[in-house]
Amino acid sequence: MEYQYLNGVNTPADLKKLNVNELKILADEIRDFIIETVKKTGGHLAPSLGVVELTIALLYVFDLPEDKIIWDVGHQAYAYKVLTGRRDKLHTLRQYGGISGFLKRSESEYDVYGAGHASTSISAALGFSVANELLEQPGRILAVIGDGSLTGGLAYEGLNNLGNMKKQMITILNDNAMSISPNVGAMSKYLNKIVTDPIYNRIRDKIWNLTSKLSMGKFMLRGGLKKLEESLKNLLVPGILFDELGVRYFGPVDGHDIQALVATFRRLKDIKTPILVHVITKKGKGLTEAEDDPTTFHGIQGGKVGPKPKAPSYTHVFGHTAVELAEKNEKIVAITAAMREGTGLIEFDKKFHDRFFDVGIAEGHAVTFAAGLAANGLRPIVAIYSTFMQRALDPLMHDVSLQKLPVIFCLDRAGLVGADGPTHHGVFDLSYISMLPNVIVAAPKDGNELRNLMHSALTVTDKPYVIRYPRDEAVRFEPNREPETIEPGTWEILQKGKKLALIANGSMVYESELALRMLAGVIPDVTFVNARFIKPMDTALLKQLAESHKILLTVEENAPAGGLGQQIRALCNHSGKTRVVNMTLPDAFIPHGKRTELLKEAGLSATQIADTLKDLLK
Amino acid sequence: MEYQYLNGVNTPADLKKLNVNELKILADEIRDFIIETVKKTGGHLAPSLGVVELTIALLYVFDLPEDKIIWDVGHQAYAYKVLTGRRDKLHTLRQYGGISGFLKRSESEYDVYGAGHASTSISAALGFSVANELLEQPGRILAVIGDGSLTGGLAYEGLNNLGNMKKQMITILNDNAMSISPNVGAMSKYLNKIVTDPIYNRIRDKIWNLTSKLSMGKFMLRGGLKKLEESLKNLLVPGILFDELGVRYFGPVDGHDIQALVATFRRLKDIKTPILVHVITKKGKGLTEAEDDPTTFHGIQGGKVGPKPKAPSYTHVFGHTAVELAEKNEKIVAITAAMREGTGLIEFDKKFHDRFFDVGIAEGHAVTFAAGLAANGLRPIVAIYSTFMQRALDPLMHDVSLQKLPVIFCLDRAGLVGADGPTHHGVFDLSYISMLPNVIVAAPKDGNELRNLMHSALTVTDKPYVIRYPRDEAVRFEPNREPETIEPGTWEILQKGKKLALIANGSMVYESELALRMLAGVIPDVTFVNARFIKPMDTALLKQLAESHKILLTVEENAPAGGLGQQIRALCNHSGKTRVVNMTLPDAFIPHGKRTELLKEAGLSATQIADTLKDLLK
Repeated sequence: MEYQYLNGVNTPADLKKLNVNELKILADEIRDFIIETVKKTGGHLAPSLGVVELTIALLYVFDLPEDKIIWDVGHQAYAYKVLTGRRDKLHTLRQYGGISGFLKRSESEYDVYGAGHASTSISAALGFSVANELLEQPGRILAVIGDGSLTGGLAYEGLNNLGNMKKQMITILNDNAMSISPNVGAMSKYLNKIVTDPIYNRIRDKIWNLTSKLSMGKFMLRGGLKKLEESLKNLLVPGILFDELGVRYFGPVDGHDIQALVATFRRLKDIKTPILVHVITKKGKGLTEAEDDPTTFHGIQGGKVGPKPKAPSYTHVFGHTAVELAEKNEKIVAITAAMREGTGLIEFDKKFHDRFFDVGIAEGHAVTFAAGLAANGLRPIVAIYSTFMQRALDPLMHDVSLQKLPVIFCLDRAGLVGADGPTHHGVFDLSYISMLPNVIVAAPKDGNELRNLMHSALTVTDKPYVIRYPRDEAVRFEPNREPETIEPGTWEILQKGKKLALIANGSMVYESELALRMLAGVIPDVTFVNARFIKPMDTALLKQLAESHKILLTVEENAPAGGLGQQIRALCNHSGKTRVVNMTLPDAFIPHGKRTELLKEAGLSATQIADTLKDLLK
Repeated sequence: MEYQYLNGVNTPADLKKLNVNELKILADEIRDFIIETVKKTGGHLAPSLGVVELTIALLYVFDLPEDKIIWDVGHQAYAYKVLTGRRDKLHTLRQYGGISGFLKRSESEYDVYGAGHASTSISAALGFSVANELLEQPGRILAVIGDGSLTGGLAYEGLNNLGNMKKQMITILNDNAMSISPNVGAMSKYLNKIVTDPIYNRIRDKIWNLTSKLSMGKFMLRGGLKKLEESLKNLLVPGILFDELGVRYFGPVDGHDIQALVATFRRLKDIKTPILVHVITKKGKGLTEAEDDPTTFHGIQGGKVGPKPKAPSYTHVFGHTAVELAEKNEKIVAITAAMREGTGLIEFDKKFHDRFFDVGIAEGHAVTFAAGLAANGLRPIVAIYSTFMQRALDPLMHDVSLQKLPVIFCLDRAGLVGADGPTHHGVFDLSYISMLPNVIVAAPKDGNELRNLMHSALTVTDKPYVIRYPRDEAVRFEPNREPETIEPGTWEILQKGKKLALIANGSMVYESELALRMLAGVIPDVTFVNARFIKPMDTALLKQLAESHKILLTVEENAPAGGLGQQIRALCNHSGKTRVVNMTLPDAFIPHGKRTELLKEAGLSATQIADTLKDLLK
C-alpha cells in the first residue's frame, strides 16, 4: 500500500519530525496497516486499534528509549511495535519464528518489560522508577494500564505502594470500559461515573469557583475552614479515589484526539510525583465491526476459514456440560475471571444469570469466593485458563485444598496454547496442583471424557476437583450419551499388548493414538493406557503395568518437574526392573506459533511419539 | 482465677443474658484470661487483645451461628474462641494436639471459615452471602478484616466485586494502624486521615448542615444542583473511597467502647446492601508493654526462656548477610511484604533506608516490583516466607523466570514452622519453584552456607535465584569467615562410604548428621551428600552415586510431588540398578505443634532417619 507518512517512520525520532496534523494522517495509516496485517496474521485487533493515537502521542511527547513505557498485557502494542522499528516484521506477528503478539525484552530495546498477563505494569514501572532514582539514571517512567486490568488485585497493590512512595511515574489509564468481556466491578462503575456524570465532568470549573466563593461567603465555619475549602476542591474533582490513594488524577482525555493528548502530556510530563492520566479510548476504533463487537474482535484468527473441525472444542464441551449440570442441580454456580466467552460460559450466563459470576480479572478472588460459596452449601465450578490459575495458587492451597472444599476447577488452555506464546502456555498446572493434598487432578482424553469427569466430580466426591484440557478440538463428543461415572484415580486400558506400555495423559492420548496408527504393522502391539488422573494415581494398574512390561513410556503436555511422568518414574523405581521413559515438555519456555508447530518443537507430536516408540522397541 | 462472668459464658447465647455494663466487666475478664493463658502457651497476643470488646459486641448483637462471621487471618480470634465454647481449651492453644491459633472449620461450628493468610475474608464472605441468597438460607454474613490485610490485592478484588454485587454483607474494618510491622501504603494513610482529620471526623454534622443550606443559598448552579448537593453530601463524609466502590461506609467507631459498638451494630445490622464499619482498635489493648510495642508482642513464645541456642537463627544470618552484601554493592536493595522483623531486615532498613522497601502484605507486588527493579539495573533481594510466596507464583513465573531477571529470593520459614500450623508451613516451595525454567533453587545446610549462597547468587549468575531455609537455628555461623563461592548445581560430599548414599537437602542435612552420629559404630560407613541445589541438580555426582551405591536415601522437608527425592528417583530410573528411597513430608497437611513434634509426626526426625538407615542396611 501507498502511505504518505508511515513508510518514513522507523523510530520514535522520525515521528517527532511530523506536526500534529500529519500525526493524524499517520494514525489513519497505522490503523489501516494494522487492520490489513492482522486480518492475515490473526491477533488482538480491537485492543490495538483503540490506542493508535495514544501510542503516537506518547512517542511524540516523550523521549524513548530513555523515557520508558511499561505496557500492561501488551496485546495493545501493535502500533508501538510499528513505530519502534518493527513495521516490516508485523506480518510475522504471532507466527512461529515471527515477532510476538506481546512486548518482549529480547525483541527490541523499546520493549523494556514484557507482559501477557494483566495488572503488572504499575508494580513493574514503580520498580523502574525507583531504580532510576537510586542509580541516578535519566528518563521518565510511564505505565499504561487498561481499565480491565484495574480489576486485578496486583494493580491495586501497585497503586497502594505508588501513592505512598511519591516517585516520578505517569500511569496512563487506557479506559475503554471493556476488559475482554464487558468490564465488571465497582471500580469500573466508578470510572464510568467520572466519564458520564456531569458533576464530575462538565461543571468542574464551576465547582472550583464555588469553593473559592465559599471561603468568602457567609457559611463560615469557625475552625477548619481552610481545610474544608481544600477538601472541597480535592473532593469535587474527578478521580478522587486515585487522589485519596496519593496518585494525582488528570482527565478524562479523549484518547482519539491527538492534539489533546499531545497537549496534555506536554503539560504533565515533568511532574515528579505519581500522576494518573485517564484516557478514554474505543476498543476496535476505526473498524466498524470491531467497534460494535469488541469481544469477538478482541483477538481474531488469521487467514481463511479452515476445514470444519471434526469435533467441537473442549471449551464448547465444557460450556455445554456446565449447563447440563446446572439444569439438574440448582446448587451449581459458575465463576469466571473476565473470560465468559473464552471459557465457554455464555450459554450458562444466559440460562442461569443469577448463578453466573464474572468477577473480572481477579483469579485470586474467584477461587476464595468459590471457597466461600462451597463452605456455605453451593457447588461452584470455577473456569480459569491454566496459565491464569497460577495467580490463584495460594487461594487454591489455603482456602480450598486445606479446607477440603468441594470446588470444581475447569482449566482451559492447558498445555501449549499457540500464538499467544509463553506467557499464555498452561504448562505447569499438573505440577503445582498435584503437589497439594486432598485434590483430585484429571485430564480427559476427549470431549466425552471431559463431560464424564465433570459429572463424576459432582457425584463421586466432595474433594476439590481439577480438570485440565487443551485449546483444541475435543476429538470426540456425543452430547446425548448417558454420562458415565468415573472413579477418581482410575486409568483406562485402551489396548493390551506386551513389552511396552504407553501411558498417555489428556491431550496426549489422541497424539499417541495417531502415533500408534502410524506404526500399525511396524511395531508389535503395545499396551495403551489413558492415564486420566495424575492424582490420585492408579497405582494398582501402574504396578501391573510395571510388572508385565519392560518399558513404560509416559506422554504428557506439562513441564517435566512434578508432572505425571516423573511421578510414575519415581513410583516405579522400587521395582528396579522396569525402564520408564518420559515424554514431557522441555524445561524451557516454548515460543509462540501454531499449536502443531509448538508440539513439534517440544517433541510431543504424533510423529515424535511414533519415533520414540520405534526406538524403544528396537 | 475467680471471674464474675467469664465462667458462666459458654456460648454466645449466655452472653446475651448480660447487660452492657456487665459486658464491660466481662471484657476485662477475658483480657486477663487471654493474657494469663497466652503468656504460658505463646501466641498472637497483641492482635487478640485489640478486639475483645469488638468480639463481645458482635456476638451480643448478632445471632450466631445462624449469622456468620468470617475472620481474616484469624489470629485475633482468641476472645471469639473463648466465647464460643473453647474457654477451657485455650490453655492448649497452638500446642500439639490442642486448639489452633487460627480459626478452623473442624474445630467448632462457629468457625465457619478458616484462614491464616491475610486478605481473604471479604472474598470468602461474599461467597457465603451469595450462597445464603441462592439457597434461601437465613442469617447475616459478616467479614472482619484488619487494616493491614487491606494492603493485599485479594482484599481489593473482593471489595471491587462486593461493591458491584450489592449483596447483604457487613465488613468490619478492624483498624489498629498496624499490620505486623507498622502499616504501609496509601490506603493506610487514607484510613489514618479519616481518623485524625477534623474535617473528616469531627465536623461531619456541620458539613451536612452546610450542604443543606447550600441548596437554599445564593450560590445556585442552574443545572445539576440536586446532584451537586448529593455529591457534596456523599463526598464530605469519611470513607468516600469505600462509598465510591459501592460499599457504604460507617464510622469511625471506638473499638473499645462496647456501648458504642453495640449501638452501632444494632442500628446497622439489618441493612441489606454492603456496608463497611470502621472500628478503631488498639493492638495489644490492656497490656501496657504490648500496647507500647505491638510488633514484638504480635506473637509471643510461651513458657520459660529455653537453653541458649547454639547458633543464631537463619533469619539472623540472612539479615546479617543482606547488610554485608549491601555494604559492598550499592545496587542491592531489599524488599519485604510486611515482614521487616520476621525476615530479619531491621538492620538493613536502619542502615540503608532508601534501599529498603516494605510493600505491605502484597507479595505479588513485591515480586513484580522486584522484576521492574532488576530490569532497570538493580539487584533486588526479596525476603518472603515460603508459605506467602505461594501468593506470588504468577509474578515469579511471568515476570521473573520468563524474563530471566536477576532477582534473589530468600524464603524464610520453609518447611514445618511449628505452632502456626498448616496455613503457615512452607512445604511446597521446592516443587512449585523448581518446575519453572531458568531458576536456581538452593537450600543451605547451615548459616555459613546460607551466607555463601547469598554471596554466590550475586556474583556467579544473573539468573533468578531462590534460597529457602527453615524457622530454626542455623547450626553453624561464623560471620567473619571469608565467604566462599558456590557454583550453581554443585552438591557437597560430606562423608564417603559404600553401599548407601544419604542425600539430604537444607534443613535435613543436620537431622541426617544427627542420625549418623546416633548410628556411629552400628552401621557401616555411608556416603553423605549435601544436596544443596534442587535446581540445577548435580547430575554428574548423582550418576556417580547411583553407579557406586546400591541404595540412595534422599531426605528433604518438602511435599513429595515434585520435590528433590522424586526428581532424583526419576533421574535414577534409567540405571535400573539403584534403589532410591525418599523421605519427604507426607502428602497431607501437618497440624500445629512444636517443630520437633511435627518433624516426628512427619517422619523426618533424626531418630526416624536413623531407623530408616538401619532398615535399609540390614
